Amino acid sequence: MELSAFLTSVGINSAIAVLLFLLYSVLRKQPGNLNVYFGPRLALASERQNYPPSLLRYLPSPSWVVKAWETTEDDILALGGMDALVFVRIIVFSIRIFCIAAVICMFLVLPVNYYGKEMIHHDISSETLEIFTIANVKESSEWLWTHCFALYVITCSACGLLYFEHKSISRTRLAYITGSPPNPSHFTVLVRAVPWSAEQSYSESVKEFFMKYYASSYLSHHMVHRSSRVQRLMNDAERICRVFKSVSAEQKSKPCLLPCFCGAPNSFDILSNEPDNVRGNIGLDVSNLATEKENAVAFVCFKTRYAAVVAAEILHSENPMLWVTEMAPEPNDVLWSNLSIPYRQLWIRKIAVLVASIAFMFVFLIPVTFVQSLTQLEQLSHAFPFLKGMFKKKFISQVVTGYLPSVILILFLYAAPPTMMVFSTIEGSVAHSGRKKSACIKVLYFTIWNVFFVNVLSGSVIGQLTKLSSVKDVPKHLAEAIPNQIINVYKKSYESGGQYWPIAHKTIIASLVLTQIIALGIFGIKKSPVASGFTIPLIVGTLLFNEYCRQRFFPSFQKIAAQVLTQMDQQDEQGGRMEEIYQQLKFAYCQFRLISLDLCNIRQADQQRDRDGIRDSEAETAEIGTAEQQVDDTGTADCYMDRQGPISK
Amino acid sequence: MELSAFLTSVGINSAIAVLLFLLYSVLRKQPGNLNVYFGPRLALASERQNYPPSLLRYLPSPSWVVKAWETTEDDILALGGMDALVFVRIIVFSIRIFCIAAVICMFLVLPVNYYGKEMIHHDISSETLEIFTIANVKESSEWLWTHCFALYVITCSACGLLYFEHKSISRTRLAYITGSPPNPSHFTVLVRAVPWSAEQSYSESVKEFFMKYYASSYLSHHMVHRSSRVQRLMNDAERICRVFKSVSAEQKSKPCLLPCFCGAPNSFDILSNEPDNVRGNIGLDVSNLATEKENAVAFVCFKTRYAAVVAAEILHSENPMLWVTEMAPEPNDVLWSNLSIPYRQLWIRKIAVLVASIAFMFVFLIPVTFVQSLTQLEQLSHAFPFLKGMFKKKFISQVVTGYLPSVILILFLYAAPPTMMVFSTIEGSVAHSGRKKSACIKVLYFTIWNVFFVNVLSGSVIGQLTKLSSVKDVPKHLAEAIPNQIINVYKKSYESGGQYWPIAHKTIIASLVLTQIIALGIFGIKKSPVASGFTIPLIVGTLLFNEYCRQRFFPSFQKIAAQVLTQMDQQDEQGGRMEEIYQQLKFAYCQFRLISLDLCNIRQADQQRDRDGIRDSEAETAEIGTAEQQVDDTGTADCYMDRQGPISK
Repeated sequence: MELSAFLTSVGINSAIAVLLFLLYSVLRKQPGNLNVYFGPRLALASERQNYPPSLLRYLPSPSWVVKAWETTEDDILALGGMDALVFVRIIVFSIRIFCIAAVICMFLVLPVNYYGKEMIHHDISSETLEIFTIANVKESSEWLWTHCFALYVITCSACGLLYFEHKSISRTRLAYITGSPPNPSHFTVLVRAVPWSAEQSYSESVKEFFMKYYASSYLSHHMVHRSSRVQRLMNDAERICRVFKSVSAEQKSKPCLLPCFCGAPNSFDILSNEPDNVRGNIGLDVSNLATEKENAVAFVCFKTRYAAVVAAEILHSENPMLWVTEMAPEPNDVLWSNLSIPYRQLWIRKIAVLVASIAFMFVFLIPVTFVQSLTQLEQLSHAFPFLKGMFKKKFISQVVTGYLPSVILILFLYAAPPTMMVFSTIEGSVAHSGRKKSACIKVLYFTIWNVFFVNVLSGSVIGQLTKLSSVKDVPKHLAEAIPNQIINVYKKSYESGGQYWPIAHKTIIASLVLTQIIALGIFGIKKSPVASGFTIPLIVGTLLFNEYCRQRFFPSFQKIAAQVLTQMDQQDEQGGRMEEIYQQLKFAYCQFRLISLDLCNIRQADQQRDRDGIRDSEAETAEIGTAEQQVDDTGTADCYMDRQGPISK
Repeated sequence: MELSAFLTSVGINSAIAVLLFLLYSVLRKQPGNLNVYFGPRLALASERQNYPPSLLRYLPSPSWVVKAWETTEDDILALGGMDALVFVRIIVFSIRIFCIAAVICMFLVLPVNYYGKEMIHHDISSETLEIFTIANVKESSEWLWTHCFALYVITCSACGLLYFEHKSISRTRLAYITGSPPNPSHFTVLVRAVPWSAEQSYSESVKEFFMKYYASSYLSHHMVHRSSRVQRLMNDAERICRVFKSVSAEQKSKPCLLPCFCGAPNSFDILSNEPDNVRGNIGLDVSNLATEKENAVAFVCFKTRYAAVVAAEILHSENPMLWVTEMAPEPNDVLWSNLSIPYRQLWIRKIAVLVASIAFMFVFLIPVTFVQSLTQLEQLSHAFPFLKGMFKKKFISQVVTGYLPSVILILFLYAAPPTMMVFSTIEGSVAHSGRKKSACIKVLYFTIWNVFFVNVLSGSVIGQLTKLSSVKDVPKHLAEAIPNQIINVYKKSYESGGQYWPIAHKTIIASLVLTQIIALGIFGIKKSPVASGFTIPLIVGTLLFNEYCRQRFFPSFQKIAAQVLTQMDQQDEQGGRMEEIYQQLKFAYCQFRLISLDLCNIRQADQQRDRDGIRDSEAETAEIGTAEQQVDDTGTADCYMDRQGPISK
């Protein structure tokens, strides 16, 4: 690739970024988009926004960037929760490392590369990109120590920053957990594989078991029921009711031409004319259902957080495939459909998904190979001779070699996250967050494998440093737009307490080690034993640092310490808040209670909206907008519950 | 290798086996060896053996084999414990698989191999060994299905047997644990990394912590003290006392020429003349010591087994490197010297040991390469021309190629277990059993790597099936001698409850998969797509079976289920045995109490022996004999404690 082609790519990317930036600053000022960009604020305080005069409304302005920059960590923590804060910290970390890497590479490595060989330099814009890479440094050069030094600086600053981030995030997480209002999930244990008994129902078995072994701390339990036809019907009923409501309010004069097209599912067809009757009927069905179709799964609530943790950690039965316990996810985080999967199937599902993911990675090689061929213009015009004429135009050839490959690759890459999400659903995670975490890890491996290994290693080795820094570039583009959004756009539906920070840690360490190993290889090729020799202790040091962090910080992200939980219990007991918490727990994990409460909420919200005089269509648009970001499960009850805060609040 | 060379090797091995067999049957009948071969029985009941008349005593007899064969599992369980039973089951399993493999290979595979090519067969004794291997089957032969079929039969029977063994061992283990007398280790948790405090001692910190968070179930605790100079002195004193005692009793008339040679360590030199004074002094020192040199380690005893398990499983502090808990090993299993290692060092020690073990494996390549060269006689005589004449003698060449390599290899292999034991000690295991388990795993990997991979793969591929069956052969030779020994010779000093069965499982699965992969390769070389195609599902099936077993059986070998523990607690409470157990717990994990009790025991035993009139020298020999088998730690107190049963019994 020539420098000019590379610069073309940079130019197009920058132009698009500026365009989107301007578009965003205009769109957010339009009253019609109020519900999209300020949804959570509306929900929280139903505040009225003062709109600027209509002319200013259409002028782009950078004020929101300043606002975003001024947002403190405490604001983010209060509005977005721990997960949001960790996300921001990851981005800030990336920016810091990128800045350090950029400075040292621009002022030390790049000049060394450029003057690496004794040669006459042409006009800088017509140089090939290779001139700026380590490929241009001659073998056994004395100057290779600069690359080694840069590696040391980047690694040491990354490890140092990571250590302090770990300390700070651990501390904040602890403060957040102890400072938050009582969380039902801290008191609740998910029990799977309740053994089947001919004499008694699952519910009775659960009660008997926990009354026997946890007599002093057992509070109550909720069985999980199979998602049956009635339940599907309920979901459809709810969905169709909402559609009818909005259609009738908005288009009172016009006849609805496509009533069934607006989202009416099959199971609802026969009942679609009597929404109110349906609701009544469902109420009756649910009560029958609750006694009929129990799964071997229950949410068991305990009187103290400590008791719940104990019950979750201990091996209960001599058959480890029975009475399996784990801490329950938050009520809104529960993926009800997956709770029906028998526990004994899980291990085989995990293996199947692993195999499928690996297969998907290999299938993906096809578009990657195609993209790779685009960068080699000669091969392409050899394969498709009719394109030869086009490629003669300089701009087109620059776009094809510099910009098109990355666009095509990114378009193909968009297929990966939804696929991995499907895989993670099949895997059987019982929580939305767990499913997303699993999908995230899969996408990460996928990206490293495909974009890095296949794309880079199948190309020329010297290209890799450039690619690496362009990967590092991504978070920077994201960085400015994210904090604004966390506060205004996204409404969090569940909270993992920053549990995904260890994934970020692992990724950073993996990237560092990968870079170091590649550098080791290049130093070998360049016949610089000194640089190679100094890189080995760096690799060892990085791995040791990783191991230390795993020992010192990781366990506290997986579990909450007993000491902390006991203190929280004691404070709540002394403050007389326990009775209130027990009341919350009564309904927190009740599958059908949630749905009926949900229906009530929707009805109430509809009525409120009618009273407030906000146009229904607008509210509908906002609702669908938010739902699209958060609903990633179709056909089951949980997709509706996703959008609701804890009911008891 | 020729068949005759192979048969020479078999002949020599068999002759040695028979010789040892005869020798054993004679030696065990000598009254002088009573203490060696019937130690535990003597200790248990001080029974008197009726010796056969002196002539018969020197005639070899096979009666002990019959006796060994008749020993039931219940006998083994009662006398040798669960570990012994699992060991026997591993051997029985190996014999069964070996028999199945032998039958199918002898009657199906071997004839197919022998007539695999159309050729004129010579006299069978002068055939090379290759004629009997798969190498002799011609490419794309229709008869390769027999090998595939044999693989299926062996794999299926191995997996089937494994499944039933798992079920049976799990059941027996459960019955053994619930049926055994109360075990102090079930009530006790080892607490490490007690945080240092300027205001209070470690002991006070431990008491405060557990009184705060486990107020209802905390019973008592014992701090672990640093092994100081005084402690070493105590150990030396104890050892020298025993030596003096035996020397003075045995050689009353003769002056002791080498008093210090008999085992007197340096630190005792200055005090060696006044053994009784030393004991008195040490008694005083110990009491001072107990308050002075505490480690950040404690054994905390709880009122119920359940409470102990809970305390062991839970993450206690938000800093995961503080208040680290695990179930305590049995009192006799504690490796006191390793308890002084700071907890924060452990992870780095483990990594260092891993690196050292890998380095050792590679260093070991040197003797293996040498051994490999021995089997290629021509290369050897080319390298050392002066040996040429010797190799011309047929017998010598047969010994050199057939027998010598395995002898040299085995001699070198003897170096591996002690080395791995040293590595495992450095690793920081707090229990003798844990250290041995870790060493076992290292030796296993080592053996697989060295004997199998390096020796076989560096040689010819076709040799492997022979090697495989010779590996399988080893347990058979062991099998007959082991059960008489478990009952009569070894006195168990601690009991893991068959926790090492999963290691056996993993090894069996690894061997099976390795065999299958090699077979896949050979079928590929032999151009048999059908056989290759059928081998792949076999590999997948074996791996899935392994995963199933890991899910279904492994957890119950690592932990005891809460259900079981709670039942045991309840039974003991109802039976009024708790007070008695608490009394036991008072002394079970007291470091110095153990030593002083130990000294008393030795004194009492000495007096008893004097009274009984058994010659002191004999008792000494037996003691040293037993000690040699069990003491694998030098210079610290624990080596003496190893030999004692639970003190409180």
